[in-house]
Amino acid sequence: MKHFLTTEHWSHSSLQELIDFAVELKQNKFQPLLKEKSVALLFFNPSLRTRTSFELGVHQLGGQAVVLQPGKDAWPIEFELGSVMDGDAEEHIKEVAQVLSEYCDLIAVRAFPKFKNWQEDRQDKLINALAEHSIVPVINMETITHPCQELAHIMTLQEQLGDLKGKKYVLTWTYHPKPLNTAVANSALMIATKFGMDVTLLCPTEEYVLDEHYMNLGHTYSSEHSNQLTVSHDIDSAYDNADIVYAKSWGALPYFGQWQQEKVIRDQYKHFIVDEQKMAKTNNALFSHCLPLRRNIKATDAVVDSKNCVAIQEAGNRLHVQKSIMNTLMNHS
Amino acid sequence: MKHFLTTEHWSHSSLQELIDFAVELKQNKFQPLLKEKSVALLFFNPSLRTRTSFELGVHQLGGQAVVLQPGKDAWPIEFELGSVMDGDAEEHIKEVAQVLSEYCDLIAVRAFPKFKNWQEDRQDKLINALAEHSIVPVINMETITHPCQELAHIMTLQEQLGDLKGKKYVLTWTYHPKPLNTAVANSALMIATKFGMDVTLLCPTEEYVLDEHYMNLGHTYSSEHSNQLTVSHDIDSAYDNADIVYAKSWGALPYFGQWQQEKVIRDQYKHFIVDEQKMAKTNNALFSHCLPLRRNIKATDAVVDSKNCVAIQEAGNRLHVQKSIMNTLMNHS
Amino acid sequence: MKHFLTTEHWSHSSLQELIDFAVELKQNKFQPLLKEKSVALLFFNPSLRTRTSFELGVHQLGGQAVVLQPGKDAWPIEFELGSVMDGDAEEHIKEVAQVLSEYCDLIAVRAFPKFKNWQEDRQDKLINALAEHSIVPVINMETITHPCQELAHIMTLQEQLGDLKGKKYVLTWTYHPKPLNTAVANSALMIATKFGMDVTLLCPTEEYVLDEHYMNLGHTYSSEHSNQLTVSHDIDSAYDNADIVYAKSWGALPYFGQWQQEKVIRDQYKHFIVDEQKMAKTNNALFSHCLPLRRNIKATDAVVDSKNCVAIQEAGNRLHVQKSIMNTLMNHS
Repeated sequence: MKHFLTTEHWSHSSLQELIDFAVELKQNKFQPLLKEKSVALLFFNPSLRTRTSFELGVHQLGGQAVVLQPGKDAWPIEFELGSVMDGDAEEHIKEVAQVLSEYCDLIAVRAFPKFKNWQEDRQDKLINALAEHSIVPVINMETITHPCQELAHIMTLQEQLGDLKGKKYVLTWTYHPKPLNTAVANSALMIATKFGMDVTLLCPTEEYVLDEHYMNLGHTYSSEHSNQLTVSHDIDSAYDNADIVYAKSWGALPYFGQWQQEKVIRDQYKHFIVDEQKMAKTNNALFSHCLPLRRNIKATDAVVDSKNCVAIQEAGNRLHVQKSIMNTLMNHS
Repeated sequence: MKHFLTTEHWSHSSLQELIDFAVELKQNKFQPLLKEKSVALLFFNPSLRTRTSFELGVHQLGGQAVVLQPGKDAWPIEFELGSVMDGDAEEHIKEVAQVLSEYCDLIAVRAFPKFKNWQEDRQDKLINALAEHSIVPVINMETITHPCQELAHIMTLQEQLGDLKGKKYVLTWTYHPKPLNTAVANSALMIATKFGMDVTLLCPTEEYVLDEHYMNLGHTYSSEHSNQLTVSHDIDSAYDNADIVYAKSWGALPYFGQWQQEKVIRDQYKHFIVDEQKMAKTNNALFSHCLPLRRNIKATDAVVDSKNCVAIQEAGNRLHVQKSIMNTLMNHS
Repeated sequence: MKHFLTTEHWSHSSLQELIDFAVELKQNKFQPLLKEKSVALLFFNPSLRTRTSFELGVHQLGGQAVVLQPGKDAWPIEFELGSVMDGDAEEHIKEVAQVLSEYCDLIAVRAFPKFKNWQEDRQDKLINALAEHSIVPVINMETITHPCQELAHIMTLQEQLGDLKGKKYVLTWTYHPKPLNTAVANSALMIATKFGMDVTLLCPTEEYVLDEHYMNLGHTYSSEHSNQLTVSHDIDSAYDNADIVYAKSWGALPYFGQWQQEKVIRDQYKHFIVDEQKMAKTNNALFSHCLPLRRNIKATDAVVDSKNCVAIQEAGNRLHVQKSIMNTLMNHS
């Protein structure tokens, strides 16, 4: 059995196969590939796109989805092995995994970091424990990476640009009033380098560089394509001649859990907003974002509403790639 | 493409057609009119009837519904154009509209007023922005009007009374411990006058008269049927010889957002409760209410449990009119 | 019309028939027994297993489920007859029952006690009022008993042990940091005695004995099988030669609503945890629990992870017994 926890475990070609089948599903949305199958969608954090696209995707393939929100509709859940459960959690992930495996043929889970301690959060214990104890495949709907978004992102770029090899790809940090998850940034770094793009990570200071695990993967994937992964703090050179600008905000890892200290730094970089002046420096670049996007904070109305913005198309493609992933996990592994 | 935002945009005859098809659907509940269609049900406020009847209605027509609760299960949403999104909202209605249009074939939305400033609320910006940016039809599941309730109400009255023209219709304000939305009152005023009934709006004082937009529509529709829309503060004459009593509580618009001041006034009019003594003055009138209804506050147990009460039938008819509306928007516009 | 409110209303043989059909459904999960039927799942309290198994079960039988959470997604609900509804509740259970009966063919409800006053809670007013006013069958998804769990429990024991008559069954109280519902304990007592097992209720003191209504039923059912229902506070003799150990925590009824006083007592009995030492005294007993289960509080990891633990199997069987119950209520009563 194969899970879809992070694209790190999947080869470039196997990911391309997932995208290729997603393209087919986009043409022919209704196929009984999940007939008499049940899918549990487990949300520890809120969602609009992910929820809608998974729930509808399951049904379009003839299956049945059930949406669970532990801590809201259901019990809070413990995920440390061996723990004496005298706190808030009423149930252990081990039982959750095993019980959902009794009822369902696939489990998808969203579980954001707790934002207190990155050394804890970076281990992604909840989804890993779930996958370990589940007897059915598990899909990551965003934890410390967001692999479904990665596939939708690449699918969209391929629809727009064809072969992506050698394209100049800028992953730019942007301001946001709160410290956000690095998941989509980690994901963008991995997938853009894996698909052979020439990647620049633009961020205000060294403190905003991503976790070394993802940086190392980015360097490895880049070198496999004879590319170089560049970290830059210079807006002008980063945007210069870019083919793709992907925007995301995230909290600086050295200040993880000490967000008041980080906020003082972050507040100095509101000018990282993606605006028309910056986009004018590019090679008529595509702009995208994983959504939700705070307008006039992360990007200006002019950029978001321009014809170069493919964020909606990318969101739409979530439906198709997720159906492709579910089909592959349930029927081909 | 046509939305169903307010009955104001629909002619008397087109609304009658919607009801006529609802009558057919009540006889033959399962028809594949929404086969391979997906519907997003977007609830900014809680619901029991609307949620149940829409969700089941979609399925009875062969479609798929997804229920979203922004700010609970999903992100809070901004709906002002051009705003700098540095507050709570993580996402703009423009993206919500466009993304849901990617996934779904129809969007239904419930978004109550914020109850701070009627000059703001009366513009019904959220649903109007959603409809503007959506590329699929939008249905109003209650904002500052409640058009689905209107059709269920008229369908029920027609089932009971046949032709409604000239019937004496009393829309009575009742007490409620909180200031409530005027939506159902606005709706009742519009639909009762549009369908040719002789309407009396019974309320404690001039301050409880509805927004001039709806009052003006009521006068216009009344005059088209050579009727007169009457505002009354006299319980006895209002109930006298009534054929229909429709009860609703609402907050007085002049005190909108200053509810402590209004409460002092409102508390003096608890005797507007619909009781047996008042109903005895009528022409054996039907009683109805949109539900939920606080028993022995808005109406006595004796009235609610009487054979003249058609509130349950009206609630039941929500299912059928909504299926009719969805079918018309998706297949005939 | 027949409801499924408590097994007290169902004979031993009629319950065995429900289980027998559940065994068939376990082999053949997809049968159109609820084709064109709609089921409302009304949750006043959170759920993971019950929600998932009911929602999927309805769909596996070809029906449609709608999940409602009054007070969260929907309005808070009043259930006293004749009450003047000037508190929080916006709606009366009478209208809820009647409206849901308009939309649905079956209503299932979870409504835990309020934990203030056992004399109130033990009357189970909400579900009884719902059943009284509903014109469609009502199923108990846990109130002050948990009859669906009972059937899953017995089904599991029969799968493991065959005929249960005369087996030594220990229902053991365990510690939990909070005072919990007695529902599953009441249920275990009723069903184990009804199915002819030799039942020992093991609890710290007389104060933890269950409500006399359930104790009396346990004694009656026991005597019908020429068994004796034994109350014990001695761990060693209770576990001695047991065939089944079923664990559950609950609050002591004499301290109902005065939980600070009870906590002092309860905290002295953490050693009631089910561990390997205790299990070693048994006749290689099966261990089960209704879940959720706090590991290393109610039972040790070693017990929960042992091959003798059938809690997951029991949870899985919830799906099948509930489908059987729904089929029987809708098609055979």
